[in-house]
Amino acid sequence: MNLKIAVLPGDGIGPEVILQAKKALYAIGEVYNHEFVFEEALMGAIAIDKTGNPLPEQTLNLCLNTDAVLFGAIGDPKYDNNPNAKVRPEQGLLKLRKELGLFANIRPIKPYKSLIDASPLKREIIEGADFTIFRELTGGAYFGAKTLNEEGTHASDLCEYSEEEITRIAHLAFKSAQNRRKKLTMVDKANVLETSRLWRKVVQKVGESYPDVALDFLFVDNAAMQIILNPKQFDVILTENLFGDILSDEASVITGSIGLLASASLGEKNALFEPIHGSYPQAKGKNIANPIASILSAAMLLEHFGLFKEANVIYQAVEKAIEFKVVTVDLKADSKFGTNEVGEFVSNFI
Amino acid sequence: MNLKIAVLPGDGIGPEVILQAKKALYAIGEVYNHEFVFEEALMGAIAIDKTGNPLPEQTLNLCLNTDAVLFGAIGDPKYDNNPNAKVRPEQGLLKLRKELGLFANIRPIKPYKSLIDASPLKREIIEGADFTIFRELTGGAYFGAKTLNEEGTHASDLCEYSEEEITRIAHLAFKSAQNRRKKLTMVDKANVLETSRLWRKVVQKVGESYPDVALDFLFVDNAAMQIILNPKQFDVILTENLFGDILSDEASVITGSIGLLASASLGEKNALFEPIHGSYPQAKGKNIANPIASILSAAMLLEHFGLFKEANVIYQAVEKAIEFKVVTVDLKADSKFGTNEVGEFVSNFI
Ligand SMILES: CC(C)[C@H](C(=O)O)[C@@H](O)C(=O)O
Ligand SMILES: CC(C)[C@H](C(=O)O)[C@@H](O)C(=O)O
Repeated sequence: MNLKIAVLPGDGIGPEVILQAKKALYAIGEVYNHEFVFEEALMGAIAIDKTGNPLPEQTLNLCLNTDAVLFGAIGDPKYDNNPNAKVRPEQGLLKLRKELGLFANIRPIKPYKSLIDASPLKREIIEGADFTIFRELTGGAYFGAKTLNEEGTHASDLCEYSEEEITRIAHLAFKSAQNRRKKLTMVDKANVLETSRLWRKVVQKVGESYPDVALDFLFVDNAAMQIILNPKQFDVILTENLFGDILSDEASVITGSIGLLASASLGEKNALFEPIHGSYPQAKGKNIANPIASILSAAMLLEHFGLFKEANVIYQAVEKAIEFKVVTVDLKADSKFGTNEVGEFVSNFI
Repeated sequence: MNLKIAVLPGDGIGPEVILQAKKALYAIGEVYNHEFVFEEALMGAIAIDKTGNPLPEQTLNLCLNTDAVLFGAIGDPKYDNNPNAKVRPEQGLLKLRKELGLFANIRPIKPYKSLIDASPLKREIIEGADFTIFRELTGGAYFGAKTLNEEGTHASDLCEYSEEEITRIAHLAFKSAQNRRKKLTMVDKANVLETSRLWRKVVQKVGESYPDVALDFLFVDNAAMQIILNPKQFDVILTENLFGDILSDEASVITGSIGLLASASLGEKNALFEPIHGSYPQAKGKNIANPIASILSAAMLLEHFGLFKEANVIYQAVEKAIEFKVVTVDLKADSKFGTNEVGEFVSNFI
């Protein structure tokens, strides 16, 4: 297979971890005779520094015209603590999601056997947990109108959803549930929010076409609790943008490290793959960041193009790295291995 | 002391658990020579059933003219799964919070020594954790304009905040931090939301008057993770309404059961005390609901009026109940004790 892949390393540890993902893909390409052509471009704080724009035109065009996007991480503390910054790195990522129409963010949550004890949760709570979060990614408060009055004393964010936006991701989530344990949990705050009530109504309606899938509903406050109390109850979780952001980071604790979780963002035409962790600026350039999430996002990319055998080889390589304790310090406090060594181990294994 | 207390049992298990809280207060009154006069009123689904209004005028007037409100629980599944319901139980509680000006909801999180093993989290993670969440309670998406178009295909919720709303709760939170370990963590989503950027700016400004308190900021997705990974890092958490709703339910897992957590909602003039759990309709009338959160909300009421010794007696009684395993099934699967027995134990101890 020939794939043209846009690579956006982004900020902080992004460039370091994405390098390891590329190495894994190169190795796959060699062994299985695929040609992956990478083209790098700027996004995020680094793009602001170099061009003034968090998503330069050139980057967007590249992403629109490649088969897939591999993305590292975004964010820089110099913007986070400046409420008056006019341009922000995150705007680049949000605009890219919107322009590529990446409405569904899919985050699988499943602990590694050999890492079960790395989780803050007890073994009996997480052993056997295996669920996937479908997070709507191009709507909600992320994209609604924002206001700040002139005096800077009053602000607002609008959360909006349409039936159409809910329907398309609901179908994806129900289909995924059909291929899994046939249970879908819709998470919302329908006792308070109008948008949540619309979600509930539309998802109920879409669910009628999937009579083999059991549908239930949880309020988001309760869901945040249930994910920790009894994660095994979940199969597919479907939720809106901001709730999905919160719950999927929370759910990462089940696997012991957020450095292990990748996500796929899918639209009608485009697809983007990224770790769910952030730019972790304190670790930048220190060769201590965990590259596994980024490597796994490359595996999700392969799956997306039907290369299941190849993706599996990556999953196996990652499992071996974990089993042999070739992991970064987030997983083993006294580890001698860094970002690069873990990446080497994985690509050598392929 | 003479106190006139409005009692709103509400829905589901509300009436059962609030009865135990009243019993504890009666016992305190007898032993320490206080007069607590209770007056009951309707709120929630039960008020809709009887009057068509989730917060009847009479209830509101009573609450406005008493020293404090003791509230049980709210919510009924017959409304939750009906996106078209015109009146909802929760509207009663939200209106009451607004009308009484209860802008600060305060939720202490601290595991009981004898219950540490009831938590899904490992002992070493939670032992020593002790923090308080300050949740803004009368602003944000809970109270902003809501729309649903005529076709029922498009909905919106507006999240709004003003400097004034943020300032008043920030002062309370900083003051609390001054009396604790002098650390305040503001939780927001300032990389995306305009309201969060306003929060960050205003809290920074208020913080200048509390130079002895260390202030830091966390994005809500990260906070949802950190509360589980390392709850000991927190002292006081300050956040807006919806984030506080999610994070405080999530944080309840640290104590092993949401049935153990109470909260105080404070305004300039009024105060309301309630368990943080919901109406748990499946348990209604079965004598299995945990009354401890409701009993502890009575203790918070006593503290609010400066009756620290009396509040402490309740805390001790609850600790004894837990130590002697006089607890409901949420804390001990094979327990023979019910709501009523736990309440009896506590009030007999006083
Ligand atoms: C960086 C930020 C804008 C982003 C989000 O909130 O969507 C991140 O947290 C994520 O989950 O991908
Ligand atoms: C019942 C509901 C409206 C309420 C809320 O969301 O505030 C509850 O979850 C709470 O936390 O007190």
